[in-house]
Amino acid sequence: METILTSATKEVRIGLDHPFVMIGERINPTGRKQLAAELAQGNYDRVVSDAVAQVAAGAHMLDVNAGIPMIDEPAVLAQIVRLVQSVVDVPLAIDSSVVAALEAGLQAYQGKALVNSVTGEDARLEAVLPLVKKYGAAVIGITNDESGISHDPEQRLAVARKIIERAADHGIAKEDVVIDPLAMPVGAVPSSGATFLQITRRLVQDLRVNTTCGASNISFGLPARDSLSATFLAMGIGVGLTSAILNPLKPETLNTIRAAELLIGHDEDAAAWINANRPQPPEGGTERAARARRPRG
Amino acid sequence: METILTSATKEVRIGLDHPFVMIGERINPTGRKQLAAELAQGNYDRVVSDAVAQVAAGAHMLDVNAGIPMIDEPAVLAQIVRLVQSVVDVPLAIDSSVVAALEAGLQAYQGKALVNSVTGEDARLEAVLPLVKKYGAAVIGITNDESGISHDPEQRLAVARKIIERAADHGIAKEDVVIDPLAMPVGAVPSSGATFLQITRRLVQDLRVNTTCGASNISFGLPARDSLSATFLAMGIGVGLTSAILNPLKPETLNTIRAAELLIGHDEDAAAWINANRPQPPEGGTERAARARRPRG
Repeated sequence: METILTSATKEVRIGLDHPFVMIGERINPTGRKQLAAELAQGNYDRVVSDAVAQVAAGAHMLDVNAGIPMIDEPAVLAQIVRLVQSVVDVPLAIDSSVVAALEAGLQAYQGKALVNSVTGEDARLEAVLPLVKKYGAAVIGITNDESGISHDPEQRLAVARKIIERAADHGIAKEDVVIDPLAMPVGAVPSSGATFLQITRRLVQDLRVNTTCGASNISFGLPARDSLSATFLAMGIGVGLTSAILNPLKPETLNTIRAAELLIGHDEDAAAWINANRPQPPEGGTERAARARRPRG
Repeated sequence: METILTSATKEVRIGLDHPFVMIGERINPTGRKQLAAELAQGNYDRVVSDAVAQVAAGAHMLDVNAGIPMIDEPAVLAQIVRLVQSVVDVPLAIDSSVVAALEAGLQAYQGKALVNSVTGEDARLEAVLPLVKKYGAAVIGITNDESGISHDPEQRLAVARKIIERAADHGIAKEDVVIDPLAMPVGAVPSSGATFLQITRRLVQDLRVNTTCGASNISFGLPARDSLSATFLAMGIGVGLTSAILNPLKPETLNTIRAAELLIGHDEDAAAWINANRPQPPEGGTERAARARRPRG
């Protein structure tokens, strides 16, 4: 099972036999007041710097979202898509709950995008899937429907099946549907981690579909969020999670993903692990070396 | 499936519905030259301090090993067992490849010990299992046999089944057999992490048996071993690993296990996570507070 996303020049493959795909979450004004204020004023500087920084840190894709109240979201999202594609070459996940914004983003996009997202609600399926088909995109299917987010894994799997079937009805192949099993904050819903792992394993083993999630959500409201989210991702990778929307600017998250990738056999000769975790010179070593190189007097 | 171990006064339960059991690995002269030299001279000070430190750090059990060449291993292991039981109250794993040492350790032990270990080799099974039965202990079954350590998960599972069956023939219940799926160094055997996870999941789902492993082995020869071993344990916990022999003096390992335990629903109200990861006062805060409390002049 391979989900292929492209930009104008680059291809990313999501799948069990490919590196875990990290989708940078930063270009999203939700919870980022300053970015929201800047976007509302037509200032996109931070979008550019966030795009460049996330790709430099190792993001394979970027999520782009322009969800600000009282804004012309379709126009702003299209603008962000164009701008981001002009400065980085990774494929994008076009992220909105507004169907017109998804369409504007898809229209502006060069390549095969990942639409973020559709739920199992009939109205959403019938609004979003035709767009996914029209623009030849792939789509994230979120495992909630009209009745909300079930705590019962079987219910969530049933929603996943519904989304996959409905996508097929619209001529969208299963490999172009990436299911989000939904990571609820474990501080609020104690069973959410176990449920997530159980659903993910079933999605991989039984439905044979690719998976993604918003990794930061699991640690909401708790201390040491980065450690908790990083461990969550490692456990997800251990049961077959193939991508996540996450903050690639967190070194701990990246290194834990590297460890997990090594442990599932995705890092040949441990080259990436060794390269990222090379022993540092002893403290002061660099300074002394610099002094030694400096010409005297 | 519950494996119950006891000391004279304390009980530990290994199982999916119980906290992940951390078995302290430090009382083992293998690779610890100083400890080996001290033990050879009859100096047990470090055994006492290692026992106390590991239990203080959170170890639920301790592994004790006296494998030094040219030593009276049965006598030394028995002495260590008595000494450790006199200073800490956790159950012990009695660790030796010498059958007479296992028996001496079991004779000296107060409670129900965990014998570490038996392989699937016929000669080992017939030598160790009668001791396990005689002393009412539990046993770690390692998934290798006369043909070595197979890279094929099915072969390793077959060895696990053989050990469980042979134990039953000796009147040892399945809950008193804890299987070690064997964590080979991932730097040498790239598939070893994936194989470990696959075997562990099968042991849990199909054989319904408790599991353990030597967690440090996976990272042998690689940099940043603590991070790698910690991530490995989290992924193991995610597929049902219920215990491990590890170094509890590594804070990163402990915190990653805490995260994994929270994520599988073993940390009610995230109490342990919050307690261990309480935000620290800002740097200098403590010093300033101390200065404020200090009388002037």
